[in-house]
Amino acid sequence: MSHTQIPDQMTTVVLDSYSGPEALRVEQRPVPKPGKDEVLVKVAASPINPSDLAFLGGNYGFDNPPPVVPGGEGSGTVVAVGPGAMGRYFLGKRVACLSNGQKDGIWAEYVVASTKGGVFPLNKSVSLEQGAMSVINPLTASAFLEITKEGGHKAIVLTAAASALGQMVNRLGRSEGIQVINVVRRDEQVQLLKAQGATVVLNSDDVDFDRQLHDACHEYDAHLAFDAVAGPMTGQLLKALPENSTVTVYSCLSHKAPQTNVDQIVFQGKTITGFWLGPWLYSNKNLLQILMLWRRSQKLIGTDLKSEIRARYPFQESRKAVQEYTNQMTGGKILLKPTT
Amino acid sequence: MSHTQIPDQMTTVVLDSYSGPEALRVEQRPVPKPGKDEVLVKVAASPINPSDLAFLGGNYGFDNPPPVVPGGEGSGTVVAVGPGAMGRYFLGKRVACLSNGQKDGIWAEYVVASTKGGVFPLNKSVSLEQGAMSVINPLTASAFLEITKEGGHKAIVLTAAASALGQMVNRLGRSEGIQVINVVRRDEQVQLLKAQGATVVLNSDDVDFDRQLHDACHEYDAHLAFDAVAGPMTGQLLKALPENSTVTVYSCLSHKAPQTNVDQIVFQGKTITGFWLGPWLYSNKNLLQILMLWRRSQKLIGTDLKSEIRARYPFQESRKAVQEYTNQMTGGKILLKPTT
Repeated sequence: MSHTQIPDQMTTVVLDSYSGPEALRVEQRPVPKPGKDEVLVKVAASPINPSDLAFLGGNYGFDNPPPVVPGGEGSGTVVAVGPGAMGRYFLGKRVACLSNGQKDGIWAEYVVASTKGGVFPLNKSVSLEQGAMSVINPLTASAFLEITKEGGHKAIVLTAAASALGQMVNRLGRSEGIQVINVVRRDEQVQLLKAQGATVVLNSDDVDFDRQLHDACHEYDAHLAFDAVAGPMTGQLLKALPENSTVTVYSCLSHKAPQTNVDQIVFQGKTITGFWLGPWLYSNKNLLQILMLWRRSQKLIGTDLKSEIRARYPFQESRKAVQEYTNQMTGGKILLKPTT
Repeated sequence: MSHTQIPDQMTTVVLDSYSGPEALRVEQRPVPKPGKDEVLVKVAASPINPSDLAFLGGNYGFDNPPPVVPGGEGSGTVVAVGPGAMGRYFLGKRVACLSNGQKDGIWAEYVVASTKGGVFPLNKSVSLEQGAMSVINPLTASAFLEITKEGGHKAIVLTAAASALGQMVNRLGRSEGIQVINVVRRDEQVQLLKAQGATVVLNSDDVDFDRQLHDACHEYDAHLAFDAVAGPMTGQLLKALPENSTVTVYSCLSHKAPQTNVDQIVFQGKTITGFWLGPWLYSNKNLLQILMLWRRSQKLIGTDLKSEIRARYPFQESRKAVQEYTNQMTGGKILLKPTT
């Protein structure tokens, strides 16, 4: 194990106000020091996720006062550790990290992460680039399948189904015998998912969409939907699903409040609830359970839980990178990397 | 036991279209015959409930094609029985009945009810008039307390809290040590509930209402609301409640869809769900459990689960009676009765 020289200053991406990519700039900041049960990670790469876009616009669950370093997840190498039993285990290891919103995010040369669920060891076979994308989408996809199986569901509805996450859920679903009813917005997304083996892919722009969705939900007896769109889509899902179904909202691509309908809620016994990875992990599971979930997920990073990469940008070009991702959210992830 | 002579024809209240009290009229119809596991009840009285108003306006979960006989519950005496083991037990008994929406309702001189959960024996101490109001509100109030206790809640929020149901929930809550945070719309309702011993009663018209509600929810650690109002009130409840709370909508007095907020659903882990008495009774409980719940509830009909009566009208004046109740829903129930 080589001990890297840790500089005093580092390059970070900073968000000046919760007003989108225009508020991004680069800033030199002191390299933070790991405290008790914390490690210092020299960052290798960090993806731009839909949740980062929400964060930049002030539409996410974290709201530290700006200026703040964004970045929900990333990968790197542990170069220093604070006091605590777990730290020594991680020293020198290649890891993935998940931001918990209480400190600065991952778009920086160095980041402090908690050994209590904020840092995960990468499998040898997982590259630092794949590792950078191995927490949020892979664990969310795994969570969706776990929720599906625990509820005894054999079929689910998935909106924004052509996303990186959506594709993972489809692959896991096929592996586990869960029928996925996919909802997308464009014909090329229908083709993409069908080429990957999806059997039911509906285009929400079809004039006949509501009937198609209703028929598919009833044919496959789907009582659970994972909805990334919210707004009117939530209302359409509520109406299409059979009695006693649940719509689990996990994002808000429509930028509109989930629509409801009192008939569906009161008389049809339907429920609207939410999913957010952090609370799902940390309120439901102990550290051992989280690490077991992580290990199962790491084994699939090269296959079912693989993410495509379409571009890499240095931190200095984060604004451009975010704009490019905002314009085109499917078709591969964009990674931010330190220049060094 | 005296065998009453059953006529061929009877007076019924009929709704011609789902367009409110103007569509009510009286009609002579053949007296129905009880089939297998059914009894024929000679009706004594039937209240006008908020759920009946929703039904008359086409805003309820039942939607038999009109013309249809309304009336969700009532009381009477079993005068004939169809084949089936339970029927003989009920013959001659004073009972309460609950409409399941699959047949005509209770606003008629005679009604057929199912021995499988649609008809309940009245305690000797319960009058036919109190018995007429002893299913929907008393069992709903009992259900709310059961849901509260099963969820481990020590405090709940209740909207439209001055209703007959709301007053019952308050009395049961006091008996069982559950803190009720009451929400009403008028100062006289605040006074009414406080005079009955309620400790927390908020007026949603107060300019400061949102803050008061937030503070009360957090002070008493309330994570569950029962909401009869829906519309913006549901959104206000979602915002006021702490993380991981549930708003259970059970009526729609605002005539507006429950409002949501993606922050509250996704990032605060809050849930909107519904309550409807019939499915809650019949999907969760077997007949023995329903009868045990009924017996506990009957014992409290003279006290915690008592309803006040403010007026009685014959079926012929049902339109006037419904209009009077629509104009003033608190201050005692209005009963409809056959003239005979």
